[in-house]
Amino acid sequence: MITIAPSILSADFAALGAEVAEAEASGGDWIHVDVMDGHFVPNITLGPPIVKAVKAHTSLPLDVHLMIENPERYIPEFAASGANVITVHAEACVHLHRVVHQIKELGLLAGVAINPGTPASAVREVLEDVDMVLVMTVNPGFGGQSFIPHTLKKIRQIREWAREVNHTSLRIEVDGGIAEATAPLVAEAGADVLVAGNAVFGRSDRAAAIKAIREAAEAALR
Amino acid sequence: MITIAPSILSADFAALGAEVAEAEASGGDWIHVDVMDGHFVPNITLGPPIVKAVKAHTSLPLDVHLMIENPERYIPEFAASGANVITVHAEACVHLHRVVHQIKELGLLAGVAINPGTPASAVREVLEDVDMVLVMTVNPGFGGQSFIPHTLKKIRQIREWAREVNHTSLRIEVDGGIAEATAPLVAEAGADVLVAGNAVFGRSDRAAAIKAIREAAEAALR
Amino acid sequence: MITIAPSILSADFAALGAEVAEAEASGGDWIHVDVMDGHFVPNITLGPPIVKAVKAHTSLPLDVHLMIENPERYIPEFAASGANVITVHAEACVHLHRVVHQIKELGLLAGVAINPGTPASAVREVLEDVDMVLVMTVNPGFGGQSFIPHTLKKIRQIREWAREVNHTSLRIEVDGGIAEATAPLVAEAGADVLVAGNAVFGRSDRAAAIKAIREAAEAALR
Amino acid sequence: MITIAPSILSADFAALGAEVAEAEASGGDWIHVDVMDGHFVPNITLGPPIVKAVKAHTSLPLDVHLMIENPERYIPEFAASGANVITVHAEACVHLHRVVHQIKELGLLAGVAINPGTPASAVREVLEDVDMVLVMTVNPGFGGQSFIPHTLKKIRQIREWAREVNHTSLRIEVDGGIAEATAPLVAEAGADVLVAGNAVFGRSDRAAAIKAIREAAEAALR
Amino acid sequence: MITIAPSILSADFAALGAEVAEAEASGGDWIHVDVMDGHFVPNITLGPPIVKAVKAHTSLPLDVHLMIENPERYIPEFAASGANVITVHAEACVHLHRVVHQIKELGLLAGVAINPGTPASAVREVLEDVDMVLVMTVNPGFGGQSFIPHTLKKIRQIREWAREVNHTSLRIEVDGGIAEATAPLVAEAGADVLVAGNAVFGRSDRAAAIKAIREAAEAALR
Amino acid sequence: MITIAPSILSADFAALGAEVAEAEASGGDWIHVDVMDGHFVPNITLGPPIVKAVKAHTSLPLDVHLMIENPERYIPEFAASGANVITVHAEACVHLHRVVHQIKELGLLAGVAINPGTPASAVREVLEDVDMVLVMTVNPGFGGQSFIPHTLKKIRQIREWAREVNHTSLRIEVDGGIAEATAPLVAEAGADVLVAGNAVFGRSDRAAAIKAIREAAEAALR
Repeated sequence: MITIAPSILSADFAALGAEVAEAEASGGDWIHVDVMDGHFVPNITLGPPIVKAVKAHTSLPLDVHLMIENPERYIPEFAASGANVITVHAEACVHLHRVVHQIKELGLLAGVAINPGTPASAVREVLEDVDMVLVMTVNPGFGGQSFIPHTLKKIRQIREWAREVNHTSLRIEVDGGIAEATAPLVAEAGADVLVAGNAVFGRSDRAAAIKAIREAAEAALR
Repeated sequence: MITIAPSILSADFAALGAEVAEAEASGGDWIHVDVMDGHFVPNITLGPPIVKAVKAHTSLPLDVHLMIENPERYIPEFAASGANVITVHAEACVHLHRVVHQIKELGLLAGVAINPGTPASAVREVLEDVDMVLVMTVNPGFGGQSFIPHTLKKIRQIREWAREVNHTSLRIEVDGGIAEATAPLVAEAGADVLVAGNAVFGRSDRAAAIKAIREAAEAALR
Repeated sequence: MITIAPSILSADFAALGAEVAEAEASGGDWIHVDVMDGHFVPNITLGPPIVKAVKAHTSLPLDVHLMIENPERYIPEFAASGANVITVHAEACVHLHRVVHQIKELGLLAGVAINPGTPASAVREVLEDVDMVLVMTVNPGFGGQSFIPHTLKKIRQIREWAREVNHTSLRIEVDGGIAEATAPLVAEAGADVLVAGNAVFGRSDRAAAIKAIREAAEAALR
Repeated sequence: MITIAPSILSADFAALGAEVAEAEASGGDWIHVDVMDGHFVPNITLGPPIVKAVKAHTSLPLDVHLMIENPERYIPEFAASGANVITVHAEACVHLHRVVHQIKELGLLAGVAINPGTPASAVREVLEDVDMVLVMTVNPGFGGQSFIPHTLKKIRQIREWAREVNHTSLRIEVDGGIAEATAPLVAEAGADVLVAGNAVFGRSDRAAAIKAIREAAEAALR
Repeated sequence: MITIAPSILSADFAALGAEVAEAEASGGDWIHVDVMDGHFVPNITLGPPIVKAVKAHTSLPLDVHLMIENPERYIPEFAASGANVITVHAEACVHLHRVVHQIKELGLLAGVAINPGTPASAVREVLEDVDMVLVMTVNPGFGGQSFIPHTLKKIRQIREWAREVNHTSLRIEVDGGIAEATAPLVAEAGADVLVAGNAVFGRSDRAAAIKAIREAAEAALR
Repeated sequence: MITIAPSILSADFAALGAEVAEAEASGGDWIHVDVMDGHFVPNITLGPPIVKAVKAHTSLPLDVHLMIENPERYIPEFAASGANVITVHAEACVHLHRVVHQIKELGLLAGVAINPGTPASAVREVLEDVDMVLVMTVNPGFGGQSFIPHTLKKIRQIREWAREVNHTSLRIEVDGGIAEATAPLVAEAGADVLVAGNAVFGRSDRAAAIKAIREAAEAALR
């Protein structure tokens, strides 16, 4: 029910193969990959060559979050590099409906992300087309932030819309400040894919960390 | 005299720490790092977090080649991540003289790169300001290319200008298609920093590969 | 009541004068002209010189759909070339209210278009200012698409808002996949200007094609 | 209750120090400063050096309205130049929530502005974060416009949302066509910061002008 | 020896098929096609769909001049539409050498164009790679200009360089203000592909017009 | 012979009218106006409204230096605001020849500026078209710099070219770090319009400051 996606942005970039293998062994469900181009967000992280290298070390789905401008130009390359889920930002896509279907036509799951300041209405017209909505719970690409509580309202709104249109398989992902304390809040609001960075890779016992987040989230659903 | 800079673009991105350590152990002089933002060139590779991770695994100078737009925005972050040499593209800098001094004021060596189609005159006005000129011998960011022979003329031109203004410490770096066969050509023309990608990381005996390139280049100088 | 606007994007570009004359003789009401700049959409089609040439061959209103960035720079030239209706994209206009009035001050009808992924709220603040809203029923500038059914909801929403503010003359245009089968759906939802491309110019008997679409739409209104 | 902010855009730029001093002596509450970069709006006005010069001649708060792209790059400099309130445009900020907090972390009041064509939903997600919303009542950066009446609906909507989330200190600013005749309309709708340009600086008796606008607005609140 | 390329920019866009057929019958050698995107130049003219339509009406080579930004994105589509020569602007290509080879790998002739204000050095590094250099003799995309005489110096310079590197097949094309009076000047300077717009399509006897330009040019070579 | 142009960038922006009047009374020849848009250079200074206000307070020619992108969009407005000389940056103009003539057609003197890192060849093709070349002797838009000595070579090169083409009236302007000590250097190299900022407005006796710079420059010419 709850998917935990450890984010390699918090892993040791000098040993990514070992890091993702350990994340998998520790009970992670997906591997979350943060792609930043220094234009959509003020940071540059990694691109297709690294996705490809990571792919060889895990059997988990690669959940690739594109914080880049003009994502349509890079989607084929990320798909070829082993991505299983590709998420683009609504703020970066003038032709959002087209980009979502570009991802789906490649046989992948398609997600749409929105920044904390962006209203839920930005994804409403593609809600029935996407497999996932990523509600950013911090501002992507900036350091030193904590979970923004009033994003919970947005999660609830999107979950409610999904019910209205009977899109029961819609995943809602959250990214930013997710840990044992915040997991119940987002799960209760309707999120079911939880990206965890420092809360996993920053701990010595990663299996315990993943388990704790998962149980906190699942407890909120009971 | 001749500096060999193995490029991590050809290394195993799943084990960068081990790769750079082996490059150092194999006799590499600098570690060359190719940063691409998907805007200046049609590829995204890596950014500061990866530079920082690599830094911890080698005592060699990190030679960071910024194939990005608006490099002035990211220079402080790359410097903080451990870069020793930062090279920007003349084609990406309206205020090239200023950017070069921005790098130098951070205590680093400053380089300016030019694409195969760009004339040497693009670097002439900053020749006395820079520590290095990088003459691209293939088009950066595109795959499957081989060494472009008429870039040799540009290398000669720049070396000649350097002599004219008595800039005897100017390094001339070349990147693209450098291997045992091309090393003598570029060295004879005046290049003294040779970036080698597949020609090093694509070989099983990397020490032998580095040695072969170095010797081929040095032979041309005798 | 229902306006049929054959789109010259599907006509023979080698004989546009004859094509638009035939479209007029076949009962078309407006001539629809698709302007693409290769930036707002990934295709380049035609500009003012072609609009001007077309104008000389028809007495029908020219309905010019600007799929371009910074449309404000080209509106005067399209007006001078003979456009009667000019439609700009909400996604392309930071100053949408101003651009709408720029068109109206030239004595033309002003339209605002929205892509399939764009919510109706993007036009809400200018609804009382515009003469027409163009609800794209496929993604503009991309080939091989079919009518997107859930755009009908948007058409209904906009028609409802128009009634609320008593804007009874508001035209709602649809473009993409409009043919005999889809005409009743859009007409029932509230659209009254139907752009038809292949469904007209792709047929040998264009008068019959136009008649069929018109009747299908009008039947839905009874 | 009602704040009157004379806009120096209508002052004599050859004697700004005297102009702002007179605006202060005449009963103005804030000094409104219109910064335009020729990119976000089609006009270039002034930047930090002028803000700094103005600051020395008034003890009133400087209310700086940034009609510029990428405002995050200039916020620190405007803060250092003496701004007390900084307002950015929602249309110019992909990371709106982050920019708002960047302003607040500098100890200033943070505002978000929206153009006449932009729906109120553009500010909804940051409503609880901002100190002020600026509802443009004309299109910024274009000359010769008059007050747009249907912006009143937006003011009401935002005031209502502010009540719903109990943000009682939220200021709503209006700018464009504000004078004795329109002041009561905007005040009644919920605005409480009124920017006045020609209606103040265009009059010989500025104290009387400010008083008239203030009293007209306050009368509407009784 | 001298190639005359009538430009369809001066033809009747309502009857392009007939126009190009007549240009061919009148002795034209190539059909010149001016593609403008409203970004690289301040005009929008035509794109691939029109090139394709024109192709069906002539057996002459289509000489497509791309006055567009990011030409690399549209080269495959223009090639598929029937272009035989594709010319890109040096000012529009950061990776000029790569774009030239992209054109050649599609089996077409590759040209590089430079504006009147651009020095010849902008093409020097790709001179041995291209099949043609287009020296603009007016500013592209602006109306009402006449032939700029000091472009002749540039033509001479490029022809001289071509001789130095023994590129004997290099074509030098000129575009702008070419007519009977200017043809001898450019031919004498070294140009051998002459684009003629109004000087051909603006005349009633197009065969005579083409003949006159050709003979004037050839006379200058004797 | 030598023109001294005090730059209002160093004046008191709160009293510009008085400042320019004093500059005129103190013997300045032109008033230099630095327009920055925050895009071409990382600073925003002032635009047409301020030029217009300044104009009313001096009879000296206004020498407007546009450090902005797309200057062609703002040239008519600066001309209407009272500019007598307009200088654009070669780095900002794809159609440099056209922009120069746009200025001249408005009846003004046209200048072209180049940054310290830009080679003289960037202006060579318009040398016979322009009235003035502005050789930047510091990087425009950045603070805290001093005169860059190797720009002298560029000044000499341009003066030499001007002699070769017999353009005897060509003015060469310098801007950045010009004071009594550097004036002789630039004058000897061929510059005859000297912009002075702090060296004039930063002194209490501005007439003495202007006189000192002028005499130092003129002495070098004898």
